[in-house]
Amino acid sequence: MADEFDVIVIGAGPAGENVADRAVRGGLTAAIVEERLAGGECSYWACVPSKALLRPIDLAGEVGRVPGLSLGDIDVDAVLTRRDEAVSHFDDSGQVRWIEGVPAEFVRGRGRLDGERRVRVATADGGERVLTARQAVVLATGSTALVPPVPGLAEAAPWTSHEVTATSKIPERLAVLGGGVVACEMAQAMHGLGARQTTVLVRGGRLLGRMEPFAGDLLAESFAEAGIDVRTHTDVVRVERPEPGGKVTVHLSDGPPLEADELLVATGRRAATGNLGLGTVGLPDNAPVEVDDSLRATGVPGGWLYAVGDVNGRVLLTHMGKYQARICGDVIAARARGDELPAMRDLAGGYGAPQVVFTDPQLCAVGRSEKEARDAGFRVRAVEYDMGSVTGAYLMGDGYRGRAKAVVDEDRKVLLGVTFAGPGVAELLHSATIAVTGEVPLDRLWHAVPAFPTVSEIWLRLLETYGL
Amino acid sequence: MADEFDVIVIGAGPAGENVADRAVRGGLTAAIVEERLAGGECSYWACVPSKALLRPIDLAGEVGRVPGLSLGDIDVDAVLTRRDEAVSHFDDSGQVRWIEGVPAEFVRGRGRLDGERRVRVATADGGERVLTARQAVVLATGSTALVPPVPGLAEAAPWTSHEVTATSKIPERLAVLGGGVVACEMAQAMHGLGARQTTVLVRGGRLLGRMEPFAGDLLAESFAEAGIDVRTHTDVVRVERPEPGGKVTVHLSDGPPLEADELLVATGRRAATGNLGLGTVGLPDNAPVEVDDSLRATGVPGGWLYAVGDVNGRVLLTHMGKYQARICGDVIAARARGDELPAMRDLAGGYGAPQVVFTDPQLCAVGRSEKEARDAGFRVRAVEYDMGSVTGAYLMGDGYRGRAKAVVDEDRKVLLGVTFAGPGVAELLHSATIAVTGEVPLDRLWHAVPAFPTVSEIWLRLLETYGL
Repeated sequence: MADEFDVIVIGAGPAGENVADRAVRGGLTAAIVEERLAGGECSYWACVPSKALLRPIDLAGEVGRVPGLSLGDIDVDAVLTRRDEAVSHFDDSGQVRWIEGVPAEFVRGRGRLDGERRVRVATADGGERVLTARQAVVLATGSTALVPPVPGLAEAAPWTSHEVTATSKIPERLAVLGGGVVACEMAQAMHGLGARQTTVLVRGGRLLGRMEPFAGDLLAESFAEAGIDVRTHTDVVRVERPEPGGKVTVHLSDGPPLEADELLVATGRRAATGNLGLGTVGLPDNAPVEVDDSLRATGVPGGWLYAVGDVNGRVLLTHMGKYQARICGDVIAARARGDELPAMRDLAGGYGAPQVVFTDPQLCAVGRSEKEARDAGFRVRAVEYDMGSVTGAYLMGDGYRGRAKAVVDEDRKVLLGVTFAGPGVAELLHSATIAVTGEVPLDRLWHAVPAFPTVSEIWLRLLETYGL
Repeated sequence: MADEFDVIVIGAGPAGENVADRAVRGGLTAAIVEERLAGGECSYWACVPSKALLRPIDLAGEVGRVPGLSLGDIDVDAVLTRRDEAVSHFDDSGQVRWIEGVPAEFVRGRGRLDGERRVRVATADGGERVLTARQAVVLATGSTALVPPVPGLAEAAPWTSHEVTATSKIPERLAVLGGGVVACEMAQAMHGLGARQTTVLVRGGRLLGRMEPFAGDLLAESFAEAGIDVRTHTDVVRVERPEPGGKVTVHLSDGPPLEADELLVATGRRAATGNLGLGTVGLPDNAPVEVDDSLRATGVPGGWLYAVGDVNGRVLLTHMGKYQARICGDVIAARARGDELPAMRDLAGGYGAPQVVFTDPQLCAVGRSEKEARDAGFRVRAVEYDMGSVTGAYLMGDGYRGRAKAVVDEDRKVLLGVTFAGPGVAELLHSATIAVTGEVPLDRLWHAVPAFPTVSEIWLRLLETYGL
């Protein structure tokens, strides 16, 4: 029967694509249902376009620190053109071809659960298809931006990550609600591309409040120097935008109202579970789909439902969604042949997911912050070191500022978490990810010699500071 | 007695400085003897100035690949000025202060062994001091550039790494003898700073013959595009330079003679053991000082002589010299208190030292190449992947070209070696260094998730290609 598959995936973002790929490699058949573009939020309205916008700004920052180099004004049109290329001009035919090459069937339409192992798809042409799954249905619908219930905010039709990454016009005056990754990255991108008045409105006491405190502090310094106005301990109490797309007035808990040409809301995301038919299988609507470490939804009889990526609420990061997806696809294929594949479980999430904030300075962390480690009951010792005093950092440019921190489990003498904050440290993070996830003992890390003169020598300094 | 110390180090390069530092931390007294500048070759005539010269070229390469950015001509004077700053204008007072702060006694002069535990120093003022060591003498005199016995070559007074890194004038036409790290880095630096005719003369079949073949091939492509002329299978048979500092004619094994304004010899280095008094302790002159894994010279009765860094011929890389030095200083201090400190041995060298070639593309490797691993008898499987097809690489710029390779020990399922070749991969190397040195099993590396979209995602691709 044409509409029966071993695996049906709802959502063709990176997570959904990877589930299908791994399941098919494991000998199963698969269909992927997607309402919008194959490739998902990441490919068109998040990671990819945001990095395309940030890369020239980041590089311009690096050039500015190297005597002998001088940069002309950034050609914003050229940057936007490359961004458009990076998102394939919002054309997903390449991704669809990739899916078909898996091979998996690509079904364009809105999919929702309709009881056990059944997915009802409202197709683009107004029709309906009912798909049934022999083995598993996998939810991979991602997340959507959260717009907090501030009076007038929703009515003002603010930008979210979706609109800001896709914009073809840089607002003169931009107000940003939030102090997390999207807020920081997009404030920097828009400011670097010409938003002459960029204001970041943060409820808490600092930017990137979940990272080690120095990370947000270093970024705030950089923002201040660039002329980005960061206002901490600031609540937005009301928003006015009398004309659609017109001037916005943002009333604050403190001080005079802020006027802006555009308003970006970046205060978090929530699992995209609305209208997904979760009620038909006994799950609550509008909450993340809880899963076990094999990514199987808990509390669903028969064990046929899985959820990967943002929708399960574990870690809202593309690479973690893809990682879960690889595990999920392998596990579904294994279970279909009666194997539990116990080594294939989501372990990485338990260590603490790696994350890079692509600002200048770049901020990267993996594992637990010192506070998280202490709160979790570990016996912790933490060491910090000024990255700017590493020779390799000095050679990167004048006035290199950065800081690193390692959080050590004193009982096992392994790293629980590492944070690097400084220019050009994004690729350095994976060394920490391997050390943390691999639980490489400190006295073995001591023999992993960083090449001179790289910034990686920070590893040596951290270990020396620890006392090795 | 003032001229008696626990430890006497000959040579105040990074290796010598680190031995003293660690020995003193271990409770010993130390003196460091240095004929030239404290800080050594690395700080003034090698790693540091070469990277100061290369950084703007490297960055200009990156900018050239990012639409929207446009760079003016490189201001060569500004680059040279920063190079001068990076080498502290050849003033070592900062380094001397550092040594004195260890605290260790800094003795300026030429030191040579004079029998057991005794060092005779010809001081700068024409006098002499005789130092005696209660525990150990450590040789850390580094290496000197090798000038091959080509007729007319020595008489032509060619540049070595020493002169090229310190130059205040960029030759119009530069001929480079050699295809190793110094040859490649300096060809690129001089060419990027204005040497309009740069010719690299390589005896072997490719650049960087010790690395995985694709590394040298990628660099050769980049050189060809930049207009650097690489001639492989080319021997220099004779050199003429009638006037000191004047035009050089290089006669080749093949084709017409090459004319150049300067000639750089970069065909290797040899341990700086000449006139070091090795004969007074029964060791051969003019050969590396052989050491065991505690860095103690073999074949010297009493076990009081050590050698770290290039002079022992193990690995001619600053970071490996420093690593050996930390071990050596710790071991000497331990042995002084009757402890063997067996965990402190040179392990890293056995895995294969990490190395970064700071060209564009950057070339990095750690551990064994596939050939080396096979020759050493391992049961090997190697996987390669095109780095340019990683999303993070695409976002670094247009036309990103790179390649990566992992060499797997099939018996233990750990990595024996990893090579990355591509723009901006220098800081990625340490991830491989930790994986190789930490012997992190592949099925654990699988859970070390690279952040998206970084170039580090090459890790995922390599592991997938392997079959995970």
